[in-house]
Amino acid sequence: MLRSLTLCVITDPKLAPGRDHVGIAKAALAGGADMIQLRDKAGDLRELLPQARAIQALCRSQGAIFIVNDRLDLALAAGADGVHVGQEDLPAEAARRLLPPGRILGVSTHTPEQAEAARLGGADYIGFGPMFPSGTKDTGYTPRGLEGLRGVRAAICLPILAIGGITLDTVEGVIAAGATAPAVISAILAAPDIAAAAAAFRERVAAARARAGASRGSKVA
Amino acid sequence: MLRSLTLCVITDPKLAPGRDHVGIAKAALAGGADMIQLRDKAGDLRELLPQARAIQALCRSQGAIFIVNDRLDLALAAGADGVHVGQEDLPAEAARRLLPPGRILGVSTHTPEQAEAARLGGADYIGFGPMFPSGTKDTGYTPRGLEGLRGVRAAICLPILAIGGITLDTVEGVIAAGATAPAVISAILAAPDIAAAAAAFRERVAAARARAGASRGSKVA
Repeated sequence: MLRSLTLCVITDPKLAPGRDHVGIAKAALAGGADMIQLRDKAGDLRELLPQARAIQALCRSQGAIFIVNDRLDLALAAGADGVHVGQEDLPAEAARRLLPPGRILGVSTHTPEQAEAARLGGADYIGFGPMFPSGTKDTGYTPRGLEGLRGVRAAICLPILAIGGITLDTVEGVIAAGATAPAVISAILAAPDIAAAAAAFRERVAAARARAGASRGSKVA
Repeated sequence: MLRSLTLCVITDPKLAPGRDHVGIAKAALAGGADMIQLRDKAGDLRELLPQARAIQALCRSQGAIFIVNDRLDLALAAGADGVHVGQEDLPAEAARRLLPPGRILGVSTHTPEQAEAARLGGADYIGFGPMFPSGTKDTGYTPRGLEGLRGVRAAICLPILAIGGITLDTVEGVIAAGATAPAVISAILAAPDIAAAAAAFRERVAAARARAGASRGSKVA
Protein backbone atom coordinates (compact mmCIF):
# COMPACT_ATOMS: atom_id res chain seq x y z
CA MET A 1 0.00 0.00 0.00
CA LEU A 2 2.68 2.51 1.03
CA ARG A 3 4.91 1.52 -1.88
CA SER A 4 2.21 2.43 -4.34
CA LEU A 5 1.60 5.87 -2.86
CA THR A 6 1.43 8.68 -5.36
CA LEU A 7 0.84 11.87 -3.43
CA CYS A 8 0.74 12.90 0.22
CA VAL A 9 -0.84 16.27 0.93
CA ILE A 10 -0.17 17.86 4.31
CA THR A 11 -2.96 20.04 5.59
CA ASP A 12 -1.97 23.41 6.98
CA PRO A 13 -4.83 25.90 7.19
CA LYS A 14 -2.38 28.80 7.51
CA LEU A 15 -1.48 28.26 3.84
CA ALA A 16 -5.03 27.84 2.57
CA PRO A 17 -7.05 30.82 3.76
CA GLY A 18 -10.72 30.10 4.23
CA ARG A 19 -10.29 26.34 4.47
CA ASP A 20 -9.93 24.15 7.54
CA HIS A 21 -8.18 20.79 7.61
CA VAL A 22 -11.29 19.02 6.33
CA GLY A 23 -11.74 21.42 3.42
CA ILE A 24 -8.13 21.00 2.39
CA ALA A 25 -8.31 17.22 2.68
CA LYS A 26 -11.52 17.03 0.69
CA ALA A 27 -10.05 19.05 -2.16
CA ALA A 28 -6.77 17.12 -2.11
CA LEU A 29 -8.61 13.79 -2.20
CA ALA A 30 -10.75 15.03 -5.07
CA GLY A 31 -7.52 15.69 -6.93
CA GLY A 32 -6.23 12.19 -6.27
CA ALA A 33 -4.06 12.49 -3.16
CA ASP A 34 -3.80 9.02 -1.62
CA MET A 35 -2.37 10.12 1.71
CA ILE A 36 -3.50 13.02 3.87
CA GLN A 37 -1.38 14.15 6.77
CA LEU A 38 -2.98 16.49 9.30
CA ARG A 39 -0.33 18.77 10.75
CA ASP A 40 -1.30 21.28 13.42
CA LYS A 41 1.12 21.73 16.29
CA ALA A 42 -0.73 24.66 17.81
CA GLY A 43 -4.37 23.62 17.59
CA ASP A 44 -6.53 22.49 20.49
CA LEU A 45 -7.44 18.83 20.31
CA ARG A 46 -11.04 19.67 21.06
CA GLU A 47 -11.20 21.51 17.74
CA LEU A 48 -8.98 19.09 15.85
CA LEU A 49 -10.62 15.84 16.90
CA PRO A 50 -13.86 16.26 14.93
CA GLN A 51 -11.83 17.37 11.91
CA ALA A 52 -9.52 14.39 12.21
CA ARG A 53 -12.48 12.03 12.46
CA ALA A 54 -14.07 13.59 9.40
CA ILE A 55 -10.85 13.26 7.40
CA GLN A 56 -10.42 9.65 8.49
CA ALA A 57 -13.93 8.91 7.21
CA LEU A 58 -13.23 10.73 3.93
CA CYS A 59 -9.96 8.88 3.44
CA ARG A 60 -11.48 5.53 4.21
CA SER A 61 -14.29 6.06 1.73
CA GLN A 62 -11.77 6.88 -0.97
CA GLY A 63 -9.11 4.32 -0.20
CA ALA A 64 -6.63 6.93 0.97
CA ILE A 65 -4.44 6.81 4.05
CA PHE A 66 -4.87 9.26 6.92
CA ILE A 67 -1.90 10.14 9.08
CA VAL A 68 -1.70 12.57 12.01
CA ASN A 69 1.50 14.53 12.53
CA ASP A 70 3.07 14.44 16.01
CA ARG A 71 -0.11 14.06 18.09
CA LEU A 72 -0.32 10.34 18.63
CA ASP A 73 -3.14 10.97 21.07
CA LEU A 74 -5.15 12.66 18.33
CA ALA A 75 -4.32 9.83 15.92
CA LEU A 76 -5.56 7.26 18.43
CA ALA A 77 -8.67 9.20 19.34
CA ALA A 78 -9.60 9.75 15.69
CA GLY A 79 -8.85 6.18 14.68
CA ALA A 80 -6.35 7.45 12.10
CA ASP A 81 -4.37 5.01 9.99
CA GLY A 82 -1.17 6.18 11.57
CA VAL A 83 1.05 8.86 12.98
CA HIS A 84 4.04 10.75 11.65
CA VAL A 85 6.71 11.85 14.12
CA GLY A 86 9.56 14.26 13.60
CA GLN A 87 12.98 14.28 15.18
CA GLU A 88 11.61 16.54 17.97
CA ASP A 89 8.55 14.39 18.63
CA LEU A 90 8.08 11.04 20.33
CA PRO A 91 10.91 8.67 19.41
CA ALA A 92 9.88 6.11 16.79
CA GLU A 93 10.12 3.18 19.24
CA ALA A 94 7.85 4.91 21.75
CA ALA A 95 5.30 5.73 19.06
CA ARG A 96 5.49 2.19 17.68
CA ARG A 97 4.75 0.70 21.09
CA LEU A 98 1.73 2.95 21.57
CA LEU A 99 0.19 2.33 18.15
CA PRO A 100 -2.29 -0.52 17.82
CA PRO A 101 -1.13 -3.35 15.53
CA GLY A 102 -1.42 -2.58 11.85
CA ARG A 103 -1.19 1.18 12.17
CA ILE A 104 1.33 3.12 10.14
CA LEU A 105 4.33 4.89 11.61
CA GLY A 106 6.15 7.54 9.59
CA VAL A 107 9.28 9.33 10.73
CA SER A 108 10.81 12.56 9.42
CA THR A 109 14.48 12.12 8.62
CA HIS A 110 17.19 14.35 7.21
CA THR A 111 20.17 11.99 6.94
CA PRO A 112 20.76 8.32 6.09
CA GLU A 113 21.65 7.76 9.77
CA GLN A 114 18.31 9.13 10.93
CA ALA A 115 16.60 7.02 8.29
CA GLU A 116 18.29 3.87 9.57
CA ALA A 117 17.40 4.77 13.16
CA ALA A 118 13.79 5.28 12.09
CA ARG A 119 13.77 1.86 10.45
CA LEU A 120 15.16 0.25 13.58
CA GLY A 121 12.57 2.12 15.62
CA GLY A 122 9.79 0.54 13.63
CA ALA A 123 8.98 3.11 10.96
CA ASP A 124 6.82 1.93 8.06
CA TYR A 125 7.99 4.79 5.89
CA ILE A 126 10.26 7.77 6.25
CA GLY A 127 9.91 11.37 5.29
CA PHE A 128 13.11 12.79 3.85
CA GLY A 129 14.02 16.39 3.30
CA PRO A 130 14.00 19.23 2.96
CA MET A 131 14.56 18.51 -0.72
CA PHE A 132 14.67 22.14 -1.80
CA PRO A 133 14.47 25.54 -0.14
CA SER A 134 11.01 25.85 1.41
CA GLY A 135 9.27 28.53 3.39
CA THR A 136 6.86 26.21 5.20
CA LYS A 137 8.99 24.90 8.02
CA ASP A 138 12.49 25.51 9.26
CA THR A 139 13.89 22.05 9.91
CA GLY A 140 17.34 23.32 10.77
CA TYR A 141 18.74 21.34 7.84
CA THR A 142 19.98 22.71 4.52
CA PRO A 143 18.21 21.38 1.44
CA ARG A 144 19.22 17.76 0.80
CA GLY A 145 18.66 17.89 -2.96
CA LEU A 146 18.45 14.94 -5.33
CA GLU A 147 21.92 13.80 -4.30
CA GLY A 148 20.86 13.54 -0.67
CA LEU A 149 17.76 11.63 -1.68
CA ARG A 150 19.81 9.16 -3.73
CA GLY A 151 22.01 8.64 -0.69
CA VAL A 152 19.14 7.74 1.61
CA ARG A 153 17.49 5.65 -1.12
CA ALA A 154 20.67 3.61 -1.38
CA ALA A 155 20.88 3.23 2.38
CA ILE A 156 17.37 2.10 3.16
CA CYS A 157 14.59 0.04 1.63
CA LEU A 158 11.59 1.69 3.29
CA PRO A 159 9.19 3.80 1.25
CA ILE A 160 10.40 7.41 1.17
CA LEU A 161 8.16 10.44 1.09
CA ALA A 162 10.30 13.31 -0.14
CA ILE A 163 9.32 16.68 1.28
CA GLY A 164 10.29 20.31 1.21
CA GLY A 165 9.82 22.80 -1.60
CA ILE A 166 8.82 20.20 -4.21
CA THR A 167 6.96 21.73 -7.18
CA LEU A 168 5.46 20.42 -10.40
CA ASP A 169 8.74 21.29 -12.07
CA THR A 170 10.87 19.25 -9.68
CA VAL A 171 8.68 16.33 -8.71
CA GLU A 172 9.66 14.09 -11.62
CA GLY A 173 13.31 14.39 -10.69
CA VAL A 174 12.43 13.53 -7.11
CA ILE A 175 10.70 10.32 -8.17
CA ALA A 176 13.55 9.47 -10.52
CA ALA A 177 16.00 9.90 -7.62
CA GLY A 178 14.16 7.25 -5.63
CA ALA A 179 11.31 8.83 -3.72
CA THR A 180 8.18 6.73 -3.43
CA ALA A 181 6.02 9.83 -3.54
CA PRO A 182 6.20 13.52 -2.71
CA ALA A 183 4.66 15.07 0.39
CA VAL A 184 3.46 18.47 -0.64
CA ILE A 185 2.23 21.49 1.26
CA SER A 186 2.76 24.93 -0.28
CA ALA A 187 2.67 24.00 -3.96
CA ILE A 188 -0.80 22.54 -3.54
CA LEU A 189 -2.33 24.46 -0.63
CA ALA A 190 -1.41 27.86 -2.02
CA ALA A 191 -2.78 27.01 -5.48
CA PRO A 192 -6.02 28.69 -6.48
CA ASP A 193 -7.55 25.22 -7.04
CA ILE A 194 -6.25 22.61 -4.60
CA ALA A 195 -7.89 19.68 -6.38
CA ALA A 196 -6.48 20.69 -9.75
CA ALA A 197 -3.03 21.19 -8.27
CA ALA A 198 -3.16 17.78 -6.61
CA ALA A 199 -4.30 16.17 -9.88
CA ALA A 200 -1.41 17.78 -11.73
CA PHE A 201 1.08 16.42 -9.19
CA ARG A 202 -0.46 13.00 -9.37
CA GLU A 203 -0.13 12.92 -13.12
CA ARG A 204 3.53 13.91 -13.06
CA VAL A 205 4.32 11.40 -10.34
CA ALA A 206 2.58 8.58 -12.17
CA ALA A 207 4.45 9.39 -15.37
CA ALA A 208 7.80 9.66 -13.61
CA ARG A 209 7.22 6.46 -11.68
CA ALA A 210 6.30 4.57 -14.82
CA ARG A 211 9.63 5.62 -16.32
CA ALA A 212 11.60 4.96 -13.12
CA GLY A 213 9.86 1.62 -12.68
CA ALA A 214 10.79 0.62 -16.20
CA SER A 215 14.44 1.41 -15.54
CA ARG A 216 14.67 0.21 -11.92
CA GLY A 217 12.60 -2.91 -12.34
CA SER A 218 11.68 -4.89 -9.27
CA LYS A 219 13.39 -2.52 -6.82
CA VAL A 220 10.25 -0.38 -6.83
CA ALA A 221 7.80 -3.16 -6.08
CA MET B 1 -5.89 7.54 47.01
CA LEU B 2 -7.21 10.64 45.25
CA ARG B 3 -9.49 11.50 48.17
CA SER B 4 -6.53 11.69 50.51
CA LEU B 5 -4.54 14.02 48.26
CA THR B 6 -2.99 16.98 50.00
CA LEU B 7 -1.17 19.00 47.40
CA CYS B 8 -0.83 18.95 43.63
CA VAL B 9 2.03 20.98 42.20
CA ILE B 10 1.93 21.84 38.51
CA THR B 11 5.34 22.15 36.90
CA ASP B 12 5.87 25.16 34.67
CA PRO B 13 9.52 25.98 34.05
CA LYS B 14 8.59 29.50 32.88
CA LEU B 15 7.76 30.33 36.50
CA ALA B 16 10.82 28.71 38.05
CA PRO B 17 13.88 30.10 36.29
CA GLY B 18 16.82 27.72 36.23
CA ARG B 19 14.75 24.60 36.88
CA ASP B 20 13.28 22.14 34.44
CA HIS B 21 10.22 19.98 35.06
CA VAL B 22 12.29 17.40 36.92
CA GLY B 23 13.92 19.98 39.19
CA ILE B 24 10.56 21.46 40.07
CA ALA B 25 9.03 18.06 40.71
CA LYS B 26 11.93 16.96 42.88
CA ALA B 27 11.69 20.05 45.07
CA ALA B 28 7.89 19.84 45.29
CA LEU B 29 8.06 16.16 46.30
CA ALA B 30 10.69 16.99 48.90
CA GLY B 31 8.20 19.45 50.36
CA GLY B 32 5.46 16.84 50.48
CA ALA B 33 3.48 17.29 47.28
CA ASP B 34 1.62 14.05 46.61
CA MET B 35 0.63 14.81 43.03
CA ILE B 36 2.80 16.28 40.30
CA GLN B 37 1.23 17.49 37.09
CA LEU B 38 3.55 18.17 34.17
CA ARG B 39 2.10 20.96 32.05
CA ASP B 40 3.94 22.05 28.91
CA LYS B 41 1.81 22.83 25.89
CA ALA B 42 4.68 24.15 23.81
CA GLY B 43 7.49 21.70 24.51
CA ASP B 44 8.74 19.05 22.10
CA LEU B 45 7.95 15.53 23.22
CA ARG B 46 11.52 14.48 22.48
CA GLU B 47 12.65 16.80 25.27
CA LEU B 48 9.68 16.17 27.54
CA LEU B 49 9.66 12.37 27.41
CA PRO B 50 12.86 11.78 29.42
CA GLN B 51 11.73 14.38 31.95
CA ALA B 52 8.31 12.76 32.24
CA ARG B 53 9.90 9.35 32.74
CA ALA B 54 12.19 10.74 35.43
CA ILE B 55 9.28 12.37 37.25
CA GLN B 56 7.23 9.18 37.05
CA ALA B 57 10.12 7.30 38.68
CA LEU B 58 10.49 9.97 41.37
CA CYS B 59 6.77 9.96 42.11
CA ARG B 60 6.61 6.18 42.26
CA SER B 61 9.50 6.02 44.69
CA GLN B 62 7.75 8.51 46.96
CA GLY B 63 4.20 7.29 46.68
CA ALA B 64 3.07 10.35 44.78
CA ILE B 65 0.87 10.46 41.68
CA PHE B 66 2.18 11.69 38.34
CA ILE B 67 -0.21 13.23 35.86
CA VAL B 68 0.52 14.70 32.43
CA ASN B 69 -1.50 17.69 31.27
CA ASP B 70 -3.14 17.48 27.83
CA ARG B 71 -0.59 15.21 26.08
CA LEU B 72 -2.08 11.78 26.47
CA ASP B 73 0.57 10.48 24.11
CA LEU B 74 3.27 11.72 26.48
CA ALA B 75 1.42 10.23 29.46
CA LEU B 76 1.24 6.84 27.73
CA ALA B 77 4.84 6.91 26.55
CA ALA B 78 6.11 7.87 30.01
CA GLY B 79 3.92 5.37 31.81
CA ALA B 80 2.40 8.20 33.85
CA ASP B 81 -0.33 7.50 36.37
CA GLY B 82 -2.77 9.53 34.37
CA VAL B 83 -3.65 12.48 32.23
CA HIS B 84 -5.40 15.76 32.88
CA VAL B 85 -7.45 17.29 30.08
CA GLY B 86 -8.91 20.76 29.83
CA GLN B 87 -12.04 21.92 28.08
CA GLU B 88 -9.98 22.57 24.92
CA ASP B 89 -8.23 19.20 24.99
CA LEU B 90 -9.39 15.69 24.17
CA PRO B 91 -12.92 15.13 25.48
CA ALA B 92 -13.00 13.09 28.69
CA GLU B 93 -14.65 10.09 27.02
CA ALA B 94 -12.00 9.96 24.30
CA ALA B 95 -9.19 10.20 26.85
CA ARG B 96 -10.84 7.55 29.03
CA ARG B 97 -11.05 5.12 26.13
CA LEU B 98 -7.36 5.59 25.30
CA LEU B 99 -6.08 5.22 28.86
CA PRO B 100 -5.11 1.72 30.02
CA PRO B 101 -7.27 0.38 32.86
CA GLY B 102 -6.45 1.79 36.25
CA ARG B 103 -5.00 5.05 35.00
CA ILE B 104 -6.28 8.34 36.35
CA LEU B 105 -8.26 10.85 34.32
CA GLY B 106 -8.61 14.42 35.55
CA VAL B 107 -10.68 17.09 33.82
CA SER B 108 -10.53 20.88 34.22
CA THR B 109 -13.96 22.32 34.88
CA HIS B 110 -15.33 25.78 35.52
CA THR B 111 -19.02 25.14 36.18
CA PRO B 112 -21.13 22.44 37.87
CA GLU B 113 -22.39 21.46 34.40
CA GLN B 114 -18.87 20.86 33.13
CA ALA B 115 -18.11 18.93 36.31
CA GLU B 116 -21.09 16.65 35.74
CA ALA B 117 -20.11 16.16 32.10
CA ALA B 118 -16.59 15.25 33.23
CA ARG B 119 -17.99 12.70 35.64
CA LEU B 120 -20.14 11.15 32.93
CA GLY B 121 -17.11 11.11 30.65
CA GLY B 122 -15.20 9.01 33.12
CA ALA B 123 -13.18 11.53 35.13
CA ASP B 124 -11.62 10.26 38.35
CA TYR B 125 -11.26 13.78 39.69
CA ILE B 126 -11.99 17.26 38.48
CA GLY B 127 -10.02 20.44 38.55
CA PHE B 128 -12.17 23.44 39.41
CA GLY B 129 -11.37 27.09 39.03
CA PRO B 130 -10.05 29.61 38.63
CA MET B 131 -10.66 30.14 42.34
CA PHE B 132 -9.09 33.59 42.49
CA PRO B 133 -7.49 36.02 40.07
CA SER B 134 -4.34 34.40 38.70
CA GLY B 135 -1.73 35.42 36.20
CA THR B 136 -0.70 31.91 35.19
CA LYS B 137 -3.35 31.04 32.67
CA ASP B 138 -6.26 32.82 31.10
CA THR B 139 -9.08 30.31 31.23
CA GLY B 140 -11.66 32.73 29.89
CA TYR B 141 -13.63 32.35 33.12
CA THR B 142 -13.96 34.88 35.92
CA PRO B 143 -12.79 33.69 39.33
CA ARG B 144 -15.25 31.18 40.77
CA GLY B 145 -14.48 31.96 44.41
CA LEU B 146 -15.46 29.91 47.44
CA GLU B 147 -19.12 30.22 46.53
CA GLY B 148 -18.52 28.64 43.14
CA LEU B 149 -16.53 25.86 44.76
CA ARG B 150 -19.34 25.14 47.23
CA GLY B 151 -21.71 24.92 44.28
CA VAL B 152 -19.70 22.32 42.45
CA ARG B 153 -18.99 20.45 45.70
CA ALA B 154 -22.73 20.17 46.27
CA ALA B 155 -23.29 19.02 42.70
CA ILE B 156 -20.70 16.29 42.42
CA CYS B 157 -19.03 13.66 44.57
CA LEU B 158 -15.70 13.33 42.73
CA PRO B 159 -12.49 14.59 44.33
CA ILE B 160 -11.98 18.26 43.47
CA LEU B 161 -8.61 19.90 42.94
CA ALA B 162 -9.18 23.63 43.32
CA ILE B 163 -6.92 25.75 41.17
CA GLY B 164 -6.17 29.33 40.28
CA GLY B 165 -4.47 31.95 42.43
CA ILE B 166 -4.57 29.91 45.63
CA THR B 167 -2.08 31.13 48.27
CA LEU B 168 -1.11 30.12 51.78
CA ASP B 169 -3.59 32.74 52.99
CA THR B 170 -6.53 31.36 51.05
CA VAL B 171 -5.91 27.62 50.96
CA GLU B 172 -7.61 26.83 54.26
CA GLY B 173 -10.81 28.50 53.08
CA VAL B 174 -10.61 26.48 49.87
CA ILE B 175 -10.42 23.21 51.78
CA ALA B 176 -13.22 24.31 54.11
CA ALA B 177 -15.37 25.05 51.06
CA GLY B 178 -15.02 21.47 49.88
CA ALA B 179 -11.88 21.10 47.82
CA THR B 180 -10.02 17.82 48.21
CA ALA B 181 -6.70 19.57 47.70
CA PRO B 182 -5.27 22.62 45.99
CA ALA B 183 -3.39 22.52 42.69
CA VAL B 184 -0.74 25.17 42.93
CA ILE B 185 1.59 26.76 40.42
CA SER B 186 2.73 30.35 41.06
CA ALA B 187 2.61 30.41 44.85
CA ILE B 188 5.03 27.50 44.99
CA LEU B 189 7.09 27.77 41.82
CA ALA B 190 7.83 31.45 42.28
CA ALA B 191 8.88 30.97 45.91
CA PRO B 192 12.59 31.20 46.68
CA ASP B 193 12.46 27.68 48.15
CA ILE B 194 10.01 25.41 46.34
CA ALA B 195 10.27 22.58 48.86
CA ALA B 196 9.64 24.92 51.80
CA ALA B 197 6.69 26.52 50.04
CA ALA B 198 5.21 23.11 49.28
CA ALA B 199 5.70 22.02 52.90
CA ALA B 200 3.93 25.14 54.13
CA PHE B 201 0.96 24.45 51.85
CA ARG B 202 0.84 20.85 52.94
CA GLU B 203 0.71 21.86 56.58
CA ARG B 204 -2.14 24.32 56.06
CA VAL B 205 -4.10 21.82 53.99
CA ALA B 206 -3.68 19.08 56.56
CA ALA B 207 -4.83 21.39 59.35
CA ALA B 208 -7.80 22.67 57.38
CA ARG B 209 -8.79 19.18 56.31
CA ALA B 210 -8.64 17.90 59.86
CA ARG B 211 -11.07 20.65 60.86
CA ALA B 212 -13.30 20.14 57.80
CA GLY B 213 -13.25 16.39 58.24
CA ALA B 214 -14.34 16.77 61.82
CA SER B 215 -17.30 18.89 60.79
CA ARG B 216 -18.21 17.08 57.55
CA GLY B 217 -17.78 13.57 58.85
CA SER B 218 -18.03 10.67 56.46
CA LYS B 219 -18.67 12.83 53.37
CA VAL B 220 -14.91 13.25 53.07
CA ALA B 221 -14.08 9.59 53.15
